[in-house]
Order: sequence, then C-alpha cells, then structure tokens
Amino acid sequence: MTAPTLDTAPWSVREPHVDLQTLAVTESVFTLSNGYLGIRGTLDEVEPSDMRGTYLSGVFETHPLSYPEGGYGQPEEGQAMLTVADGTPLRLLVDGIALDVREVRPEVHERTLDLRAGTLDRRVRWTAQSGTSVEVSSRRLVSLAERSVCAVRYEVRALDGPVHVLVRSELAAGVVTPTGVDNDDPRVAADLDHAFDPRAQIGTANGGALVERTRRSGITIAATVAHEVDGGRVSTHVDEQHIVTTVAADLLPGESITVIKVVGYSWSYDAGSDSVVGEASAAVSSALDLGWEGLLARQRAALDELWATADVEVDGDPELQQALRYTVFQLFCSAACISDAPIGAKGLTGIGYSGHTFWDVEGFVLPALTLLRPDAAARLLRWRSATLDLARERARTLGLAGASFPWRTINGRETSAYWPASTAAMHVNADVSRAFWLYQDVTGKDLDSVGGLAVLVETARLWMSIGHEDAAGGWHLFGMTGPDEYTGVVDDNVFTNLMARANLRRAAVECQRLAARASELGVDHAETSAWRSAAEAGHVPWDEGLRVHPMNENFTTYREWRFEDQRDSYPVQEHQHYATFYRRQVIKQADLVQALWWCRDEFTDEEVARDLDYYEARTVRDSSLSAAVQAVVCAQAQHPDLALRYLRECALVDLRDVQGDTAHGLHLAAVAGAWLAFVAGLGGLREDHEDLEIAPLLPSSLSRTAYHVTWRGRVLRVETTREGTTVTLTRGEGPVTVVVDGAPLQVTAGAPVHVPLRAPSPLLDEPRQPAGREPRT
Amino acid sequence: MTAPTLDTAPWSVREPHVDLQTLAVTESVFTLSNGYLGIRGTLDEVEPSDMRGTYLSGVFETHPLSYPEGGYGQPEEGQAMLTVADGTPLRLLVDGIALDVREVRPEVHERTLDLRAGTLDRRVRWTAQSGTSVEVSSRRLVSLAERSVCAVRYEVRALDGPVHVLVRSELAAGVVTPTGVDNDDPRVAADLDHAFDPRAQIGTANGGALVERTRRSGITIAATVAHEVDGGRVSTHVDEQHIVTTVAADLLPGESITVIKVVGYSWSYDAGSDSVVGEASAAVSSALDLGWEGLLARQRAALDELWATADVEVDGDPELQQALRYTVFQLFCSAACISDAPIGAKGLTGIGYSGHTFWDVEGFVLPALTLLRPDAAARLLRWRSATLDLARERARTLGLAGASFPWRTINGRETSAYWPASTAAMHVNADVSRAFWLYQDVTGKDLDSVGGLAVLVETARLWMSIGHEDAAGGWHLFGMTGPDEYTGVVDDNVFTNLMARANLRRAAVECQRLAARASELGVDHAETSAWRSAAEAGHVPWDEGLRVHPMNENFTTYREWRFEDQRDSYPVQEHQHYATFYRRQVIKQADLVQALWWCRDEFTDEEVARDLDYYEARTVRDSSLSAAVQAVVCAQAQHPDLALRYLRECALVDLRDVQGDTAHGLHLAAVAGAWLAFVAGLGGLREDHEDLEIAPLLPSSLSRTAYHVTWRGRVLRVETTREGTTVTLTRGEGPVTVVVDGAPLQVTAGAPVHVPLRAPSPLLDEPRQPAGREPRT
Repeated sequence: MTAPTLDTAPWSVREPHVDLQTLAVTESVFTLSNGYLGIRGTLDEVEPSDMRGTYLSGVFETHPLSYPEGGYGQPEEGQAMLTVADGTPLRLLVDGIALDVREVRPEVHERTLDLRAGTLDRRVRWTAQSGTSVEVSSRRLVSLAERSVCAVRYEVRALDGPVHVLVRSELAAGVVTPTGVDNDDPRVAADLDHAFDPRAQIGTANGGALVERTRRSGITIAATVAHEVDGGRVSTHVDEQHIVTTVAADLLPGESITVIKVVGYSWSYDAGSDSVVGEASAAVSSALDLGWEGLLARQRAALDELWATADVEVDGDPELQQALRYTVFQLFCSAACISDAPIGAKGLTGIGYSGHTFWDVEGFVLPALTLLRPDAAARLLRWRSATLDLARERARTLGLAGASFPWRTINGRETSAYWPASTAAMHVNADVSRAFWLYQDVTGKDLDSVGGLAVLVETARLWMSIGHEDAAGGWHLFGMTGPDEYTGVVDDNVFTNLMARANLRRAAVECQRLAARASELGVDHAETSAWRSAAEAGHVPWDEGLRVHPMNENFTTYREWRFEDQRDSYPVQEHQHYATFYRRQVIKQADLVQALWWCRDEFTDEEVARDLDYYEARTVRDSSLSAAVQAVVCAQAQHPDLALRYLRECALVDLRDVQGDTAHGLHLAAVAGAWLAFVAGLGGLREDHEDLEIAPLLPSSLSRTAYHVTWRGRVLRVETTREGTTVTLTRGEGPVTVVVDGAPLQVTAGAPVHVPLRAPSPLLDEPRQPAGREPRT
Repeated sequence: MTAPTLDTAPWSVREPHVDLQTLAVTESVFTLSNGYLGIRGTLDEVEPSDMRGTYLSGVFETHPLSYPEGGYGQPEEGQAMLTVADGTPLRLLVDGIALDVREVRPEVHERTLDLRAGTLDRRVRWTAQSGTSVEVSSRRLVSLAERSVCAVRYEVRALDGPVHVLVRSELAAGVVTPTGVDNDDPRVAADLDHAFDPRAQIGTANGGALVERTRRSGITIAATVAHEVDGGRVSTHVDEQHIVTTVAADLLPGESITVIKVVGYSWSYDAGSDSVVGEASAAVSSALDLGWEGLLARQRAALDELWATADVEVDGDPELQQALRYTVFQLFCSAACISDAPIGAKGLTGIGYSGHTFWDVEGFVLPALTLLRPDAAARLLRWRSATLDLARERARTLGLAGASFPWRTINGRETSAYWPASTAAMHVNADVSRAFWLYQDVTGKDLDSVGGLAVLVETARLWMSIGHEDAAGGWHLFGMTGPDEYTGVVDDNVFTNLMARANLRRAAVECQRLAARASELGVDHAETSAWRSAAEAGHVPWDEGLRVHPMNENFTTYREWRFEDQRDSYPVQEHQHYATFYRRQVIKQADLVQALWWCRDEFTDEEVARDLDYYEARTVRDSSLSAAVQAVVCAQAQHPDLALRYLRECALVDLRDVQGDTAHGLHLAAVAGAWLAFVAGLGGLREDHEDLEIAPLLPSSLSRTAYHVTWRGRVLRVETTREGTTVTLTRGEGPVTVVVDGAPLQVTAGAPVHVPLRAPSPLLDEPRQPAGREPRT
C-alpha cells in the first residue's frame, strides 16, 4: 500500500503536495458528505482522477444476479449505488493551456480539509506555458445545513503578468458506475453503464438543470446548477449530457475572477421531472439567498455544535488526535442529513460494496451515532424498521417465521449472492435489534418511537423458527455463520447464540412493557414465555480441556493454521479456498471476542482473559471491522497498551490506507469503530445497563484523553489524566448517575465528579497475535 | 409427469402410437449409442422434436463461469457437451405434402427398440392429401462394431395408388446446444450457440462431408455421409450448414424406394480437417463395404455376446423383466466403444448436466461394468487415471497435497460452480479410488494396469492433508459434504470418513505389493504407516442414546423435518433454501445407508438394521441415485419385498419417467444402479472380499431371478427359484469359489452348485418412509 502524505494537525487534514500515486485514496479521504449528498475529493478540473463520484443516498440501479449454479431463494436482482450528475468540474485554461497537474507541475498544490469549517480548500500556484503564473483558490462544501446543496468558490488570480483566463464549469450527467463488487457478469456492467435515461436539459443564463431517470429502478433525479460570477464574460450552453457555463476574462497582474457555483439535487420514485427539477432549483435558490458567506457560516455553526457535544481529545499522540477528530467528522457527515435511506459500508465516499449497507452499520455506526447524534440514529432506525415488510417476505422465502433482514442492500431487499456468508449469517437480525434497544437505553426514548417493537418481535419469531431443542432441552442454532467470515456454516456459533438469546429476552421484556402494542402484533404470554425459555436453554459450547469457549461447536478441535507458512498470503480468502479455511483455526475478524463485548454479562473476567488470549493468537484481522473490537476487549481485559495499538490501526485505517483499499471509499464501520475503540475501549464505556458505566484506562504513551457522550438528553464530558477521571455534565439537568469503575456516582451541572485512575489489572499477560498480524501503524 | 405408453415385452421396447406429449421422453428412451457416438430417438423427418441430439463422447465447448460473488479457486471455465452434425434427417414428401405427424395423424405409427438386434425400427402408414397411402419403414442403428458409424435403412412403399415421392436426406451442422445446467449467464448461451466455426463442406455424388471446429475448445469434427439408393433419381447439393441428398421417384402401387444412409464421424484436437474427414470417410467406406446386412449381422453378434454373458431374467414381473434388460442394454451401449472419454451422467442420450461425468459413474456405472464388461471398465479407468495431473493441479489450488478429482467435468478439469456440493464433497476421491480397487478385486488384473496405483497414492495424500488428529488421537474430516446433497459442509460425515479410511488402507496395501512402483511415486514406509494410523484413528460418530450412527457429527440432534407439511414440496431443493435444509433431518439420497453397503465390514447386522430404519424414515429420495442403494441395503437387512419396490422404481426410472426429467437424457447411474439393485440387492452379491459372495433372496411376488457376472475371466450364471440358487460356470475354467449365504462352495464347468433358498431373517420390521415418499411405481 502507498499511504498518502498528510500533515498531522489537530483540526485539519492537509495534503501539502499533490501525489498522483495516492490520488485515489485522497479522493476518498477528502470526500465531503452530509449523508444525503456525497462528493469525492476529486480535483476541480476533473483530470487526473481515479473515480469521480457524486452520490445521493438511496439512489441506485438494479441489475440481474445470475448464477452458474443457482439455488432456491438466491436473490435474482442486485442493486448498485449510482454516480449521479457531477457538479464539481471547473476546468481552467490559462493562455489556452489547461491546468493539468500531470502536464505542468504546480509550484504550490495544497489541499486542506478543515474539520471546523467543513470545507475542502485547495490552493494551486501554477505557471502557464506563456510564462505567467496564476493562483487558483477553491473552496468546496457540501452543506450540512441545506442538505441538497454543494457549493464551490473558485478564484483565479493573475500573479505576474496579463493572462487570458477561461473557466469552464460543468454539470455532467451521471457517468459509468463500476459495479464495486466482484461481479463479472457483463449484463451488470451493461445495466450500470446505461443506467440513466436523459429526460430533460434546461439552460438558463447562469446555469441550468439535467434530469435523468434510471431505467430499471425508476428513480428520477434532477441536478440544478447556478453561478455567481465576479468579473469576466459568462455564457451557458446545454447538450444532452452537460450544462456548461463558461467564464472568460483578461486579467492584469493582481486581478482575479471569482466563480461561485451552487449545485442542487433532488430525486423521487414517483414525482415527475418538473417537480424534481423544481425541488432541486429551490435548493439552489435557497443557497443563493444565503450567499456564500451565509453557507460558510451555517456550515461552521453545524460543526461548532458537533464539536461542543462530540469532541475527542488525546494528548501524547498527535496522529491519533487528528485521526479521531477526522473519524468523528466523517461519522457525523455520513448521517447529518440522511433520511429514508441507509448508510452504506462506504457511506457516500465511494462505490465500494456497491453502496450496500451491512450489519456493521447497525453494529458499529448506529451505536456510535446513538451516543453522539441520537437524532441521526433515530432516522436510520426508522429507515430500517420501514423495511420490515421486505424482511418478512425474505423470511417467508426461507420458510421461516418473523422477519429476516438482508445481509446487504440499499432498499431493504436481500441482494447477497453468496449464501454461506449472508443468509447463513443470521446474526444480522440480532445486530439490527440491538441497535434499537441500545437506542432506548442510551436516549431514554421508547424504541417503538422508531418502530423497534415490531423489529424485536419479528426477529424473535425468526430465531424461534431457526432454533430447536435437543433431547436434553438445550436450544441450538445450527448451520450459522458468525461475524468471522473464515468460519462458515457451523453449529452453535457462540456469538450468534448469545445475540439470539439477548434478542429473545429483550423482545419479551419490551412486549411486557408495551403490552397493548405487542397484542396488536399478535404476541401473547405463551409466545413471550417460549422466547424466554429458548433464551434460557440457549446452548453455549465450552471446551473444558482448554477452559475456553470454542467460537462454535468443535472449533477448538479444528486443525491449527500454519501461520508461519502464510506470511505473504493475506488476505487469506484471496489465497485459499473456503473449503480449506472454513474448518481451520484461522479467524478473519473478532467473533467470539465480539461476544465478550456485546454480550459481556455472559462471561466472567477469567473467561474474558482466557478467551481473548486464545483468539488473539488465531485472528489475522483481514477485515477492517476487527481492530475496533479487539481494542475494546483488550481494554476490557486490562491491556490498555495493546488496546491503543488496535485503536491506532482502526483510527488511521483511511488516513494511512491501512487496508490498501481506501480508494473505493472510507471504511465507515471502522470510522465508527475507532470512536468506540476510544470510548468503549480505553474509556470502558458501557451503555447497555440501567446506568452509564465507564472504566477508564490510560495507556502508558498517552497523558490525557477526553470525549463527550450524549446520554438521555444530557451531554457528559469525560476526561482522564494520570491523576484520574473527571466527569462533567456540560448540557442538561442533573443529576446523572455514572458508574465509574463499578461505583455509582451522581453528576450534576457545575459539580463534576473525579475518580482516581486505576492501574490496569490484567489476569494474563498481554496476548500475542499470529506472526506478522500484530496491530499495524 | 406423463409417462410414455410403451408395450411390455421381454426383448423390446415398443411404442404402439406416436404421442406428442411424451415425445421428449421417447427421444431419450430410444437413443442409440455405442459410447463413442450417441443419437437421440428423434423422428426421421426431424419435426416434431423436443431436442435433436447427436453426441460424440469427449466433444465439448468451454464457456466462462462468472459469479455474482466469486471466491478464490472457483472454476472460471465451464464445459458443455455439444450437439454435433445430425445425420438422421430423412424428410419425406408424398405428392408434395410433408410427412408430419402433427398435421396428418398416421394410421400406423410404431417404434420398436429391439434389444437383441440393436436397432430402432419405425413403421408408419399414412395417407397423403392426395388420398394415396404409403408405408414408411425405417431402421436405424449406431454400430456396436464400427464405432464411428450410424446407419439408417429407409423405405417408402406406395400402397394403393401412384404417388410422387421425394426423400430429402440431410447431414445438418451442429445446432444450438442448451446449456443443460441452470446457468443463465447469457455469455454461456452465446458461446454454445456459436460453438462451431464451419471449416469445410464437401459434396460427392451420393453424399459429402461437413467439417467444423469449436471456437474455444479447439476440436475439429468431421461428419461424412453416403447413400445407397434403390430406385429413384438422386442428386446432392451442399451449403455451409448442410449436405443434402435428394431422392425422387414415381411409385406405382406396391412399388418402393429404399435409401440406405451411412454417416461416419471423427474428431481431433490436433489433426487437420483433411485428416479428420479422411477418418470419417474411411468409417463410412468400411460400413458400405460391410453392407446393410453386414452391419445388422455384426450388431446382432455384439448383442448375442452381451446376452450370453450378461442376460438378466425375472419371472413374475414382466415390467421388471423388460426394464432390467433395457438397463443392461443401455449400460452396455453407453460404454461399448468408449475410449479416452468419460461417461456423462446422461451418457450420450441428452445434454442434461451438460454431459458432465460425476462421482456416480465411478460409484455405480463402473462397478456394474466391471462385473459385466471389464474391458469397457478398463477403458474408463484409464481415462480417469490419465486426468491425474489435472487433479493434482486442483489439489494445489486448494492448498492440499495429492490429487483432488473434479466433481463434474468432461475433460478432467473441475467445472463445478457451487462448492458446498462439489469441492466440499471430497468423497468423490475415494469413490474414484474404489472403482480401481474393485476392478482388481473383480477381474484379478492389477489395478496399476489401468493406472490405479498413482490414483490411490495421490488420493491417500489428499486425505492426509485434509484430515487431522484431535488431542485424544481421533482422526477427523471436517467441513465435508457427503452423498446427501441436503446436508452440506458438516463434520465427520460417516460415509466420507469410512471411504477415506478404506482409501488410505488400500493405498497402503497396494504400495506394499507394488513396492518398486510405489517408490517411484515417492512413497516410503513412513508414509504408508501414517496412512494406516490415520485410517485406524478415523472417527465414526455414534449416538449412544438412539443407538444409531449420526450420518455426521450432531446429525441426530438436528431439528426433525415436518414431512407432513411438505407433501407438495418436492424436490425439497426447489422449495427450500440450503440454509434451511442443510441442518434439518431431511435426506435427499442415501448417505449413511450407502456406507452400510460400500463399507459393510464396519457395521454389525444390528447396526445395519437400526441405521436403515432411522434413515429410511428421513430420506425423501429426490435423487435418482438413491433407490438403488436403498434397494441393496433393504435386501441386506432382509427386507426383500421393500428391496424389490426400490428396484422397480430404479429400473423403471426412464421407461416410466419416474423423475419427470428423462427428457434431458437417461439416468445412467440409475441404469447401472438398477442392475446393482438386482444383483447386489436381491442377489446379495459382494465383490469386495477375496471370494465372490452371494446371499440370494426372492421377494414374494417373484418366482425366479437369474443373472450373469464375469468374475476373474469366467462367466457365472446365478439362478434363484423358491427351491434355491444354482450357480453355473458358463465360461472359463474352474474351480471358482463362491460364498453362498456365508458358505464357500467350489463351482466348476459342468458342475453347478445348488443351495436351498433361505427365508429372510430381518432383525426389525420393514422400515417406513416419509409420507408420500414410499418407493414409486
């Protein structure tokens, strides 16, 4: 992997020189998004670029899924997030020569993502062939206040001589979308190459609009553009694929022209072109009314509010400080304006995984958002509960009761084409349910306010129809795949069994609490009793000889993996066949270890220590999901230095391109995971009991950490130094009970509590990883 | 299913009236083949037809396999048997009207497959629109003596008035080949639609030749045709796709014309067109030299020899008598002239399963052929051992030692696209090995004469690299799929474990016997000792509570299937998802029960009885492979009446279209299985010990059975009546030891032995099947 060179700074991410080798990675890193609209950090002049990308959450095309050997119930239709009309292009000609960083190296080329301003700034100083130098300053934003709007301020200044300058600003129709999955069926590429049917092109004096409709999914999308130009001659022309506004000027030294470009988007399943154009145009008008400075001010205000309630601080590790703020920023941006759509695995930062959402959004992104931006969490949970009928339909297809949520989807319909790592991975249903109950635990708001009761009831019914009792009364789930994708189709995966138990129990509790609503869902006492009984009887394998939990029945008897022979063979799945590694002791990502966190009440401290030790030695971490979980559980087992190393790997996953695939988009679950690794890991925060719990640890290389959480409408700030931990109520009324290192304390406004720092008390030595698979960075 | 109406007769299969509803089935049933060349029983005049088919064993085209979600080591190229140039068309015009059974119903339309003559006869009496009647008599054969030759004698006689008759005889280039699998990738269809590149068209006075070359697999195929005409005016013309010979005549009442058409085939990977045409033309010349009567005589002679050494007789069940002779006939024809190619699952009778060979050919077809036509068995084993390098390559791909034979293939390369039912079904390797060692046991010839030692050694090495020891020293195979395709990716499948043990042991024994050759293969004493140790330690799960063998670890604890709710939902795989039925107690086909037969020494009589009882109640028999195994083991457990019912289902599978898919071709493994069900089932024959063993049973509805086997170069005839069993040495020198009901007896020429019939002695009541899944027919 080639990581981009980025300056380390507390409040910004700055690339000091343009680097063509890492252009694809910086396109992802410099993505601006608000959850409704996302735009990759491509250069204004379009070329060079790795993957142009403007995305609207929920806008996708379908394509057939065809199987060389199919089977009953395999999804027949895939979905892929589309690259919609791109409003970023601002091509520059100076004395007839195009600015192209490949052709003439600029003397200055800086790009800076400002985490407080919410802007991507670019400064280029460049000498044209005529010998004259110009300075280009651009500032781009995707509005956090006006969800449909992207705006750019683009200024060209002549430095040392008269120049003829031409700026060609484009709105360009949606481009070819790579499939983003390993689907090499030519029909898929064909469908996505020709996803858009142009419907209208409208030119105005200073811009215009493009309307397109997707051929298969039937979504109408409008993009509208307008320009405010200071200086120069302006003209606009239109073709089927472009709205082009040209600004030409003759500049004397020191003179400049400035173009402010505003682009608005709208889309609809059912509205006509006119209506969609109208909405997009209104968004542009609103932005123009606010003006450039107004947009900037609102952007900063939104982020001021973010940092006031969600800032993270760390002393002793500037790289980590930057990375953690970057993750909070991207996490916030991924969901700020989202509505009626899921967050994809890459958010709106690239078309990796075709824009699909997976269980890790509910598993990591939602719990983090619930503690940071509960309003965004609520909107995401509402999207999920709105897909319940599709999940019911999928369960019927599978011959099961209740609802079975999809492994990967954009609109709620299952689109996964490899069942052993999707349909068999039924834990997704408990992961979804958990996001609902954590929402209630953290916010204090009723989970049914976001449609949670029906989700819990239908997933409980699903588990009952999958599981069964043995002759001795033990309750089992056979043929499951847990989080670890290197161990598939196994019996009694501990994580799945424990999560199913939790799902059943919580469903029963909530049905009791919301009896009338439960009754509407057809739940009676007999049913909840059956859920409780199954949960009680849920089988958890145990290896008495090793005194560890096999992650599934027989796991500890599988053949050991020869890690020493495999040093150059990662990721394992690209060098070995499923049939080989599904029954070996090689683990892609935390699975049993994840249960030690999410199902912590089921394990003693000694079990946590011994299980962690066993699985650390066998986990190769070929998934970016894993480091966060390992960080949390290493901290839980009192190994803060190792936890920090995992936290660093996770937090730097995209800024350092640790996985080598940030080019396809940011790793949103790792982005959320990094925050969780910090807060639930080093901070020991647990939100799944009656009161908020923390158990702070400070790794030897750090001198201070601090973070905020929003807990039942209040904001708490937790700061830890060598002296101890101070919990401050920064917003809302107290008192709030916070359990610090097991002791409940009352926090009220103006009266922080302080607890001395405890030394780590591990039961075992720090665990070892397979050779070469220690935490990276 | 709509079964064809076929007369029951001991030596023929006769369709008394043409039936358009069952035309596809009769096309399969009336296929003529010699293992090198196969031609479906289509009507002479081509239309109507369901699927025209002329096939050459080993001639295939490749096509890409693309996966919506691929994985390491998934085959990237598929193979499909091709429909080559069709020499059967003989279109008839009478007074300008084409004979078409859809348009004008013939007064007579009989078709008869004569099992002693080896011909397909057709007699049609038909009145043309002119009011004149003609009689058409055609006789078709695929020569069992001249492997490349198909011949037809076609006669048209005017019955009651003068008529103008025109016979248009065609050789038509290879047609579109449906994929035969559920691959809906359009590239596959495109590749197979355009598989042939026409290379040459040659016309002669009475016929000509077509040469085509496959575009991807690079096979050159020539088909040559010649006609001998008695009466009429003959002309030939040629286009890129056809050689057309026209015979026209004016017939007075009672007059006739006769066309004898001979078609010859040849193909090659490397020879040029000229050379391939030369070979095909030589075949035609040879056939013309023999003449029509000479071809008929040689055909009958080949079958006289078959029936003298392989006839089967049964009194008391005329349907079964016919079906058993039909199966022996088709089994013989499938392999008579085969060489350097495998037998596909459908032989050369249709393009079902794309013409691929599977484990059931070694499992059922080869053991039957070894006892009936050991020369054909030897040729098939030589083909398999010649693919060893491809199997070694596949093992390397899988990260395993030794050789891993393909699940489905034409040329030896793996082409299976669903790994849980192919790559995970490693038992194929032991099944292949068993065919080699049974060949040695039955013929007395060295298995290495057909390349067997290297096969045993490399499969033993494969098993060692898959299996591993647990802490207690037990040896395990995890993540396997056994024969039952409704239970996938399980640990310690009993059938697989026992077959692997047998494979390891036998490899060790043969390496000791052939020490020098073993040494060339790098085998030393340490290696064979390790094989023996693993075999000794091979784990066999046992359910002490139920006192049965779970077919794999935990199987008996799976949730029971609700058969009573599923009466209309067969086959299960078309109504339920893998994720559902892989861990339920529903069994597609014999698995543990097959081990009771193939690994009989590992089970006590009580275990056989109890295991059979348990699995009978859970087996839905959605595979045509299963009935034969169930027949054999039901007989083994002393239930001859139930064995007979399974035998009938198996023997009638194609004549009655029991599975509803005979249209795609005959079920070759069931064809062989029917014979095994008769001989190893009712006859109790076992060939896997030092001496031949029999243990005859006579179901209550039969009064006599008789069969032949070829045992170490001698032919034995075994006849059983109520009085007892007589074993006669009909060919070769004695004495031969035959163990009858456990007692060794010496049989010599002219001195048959006679043993009284034993009454069945079951330990348990006759087993029950799931409701609605009792034996059919």
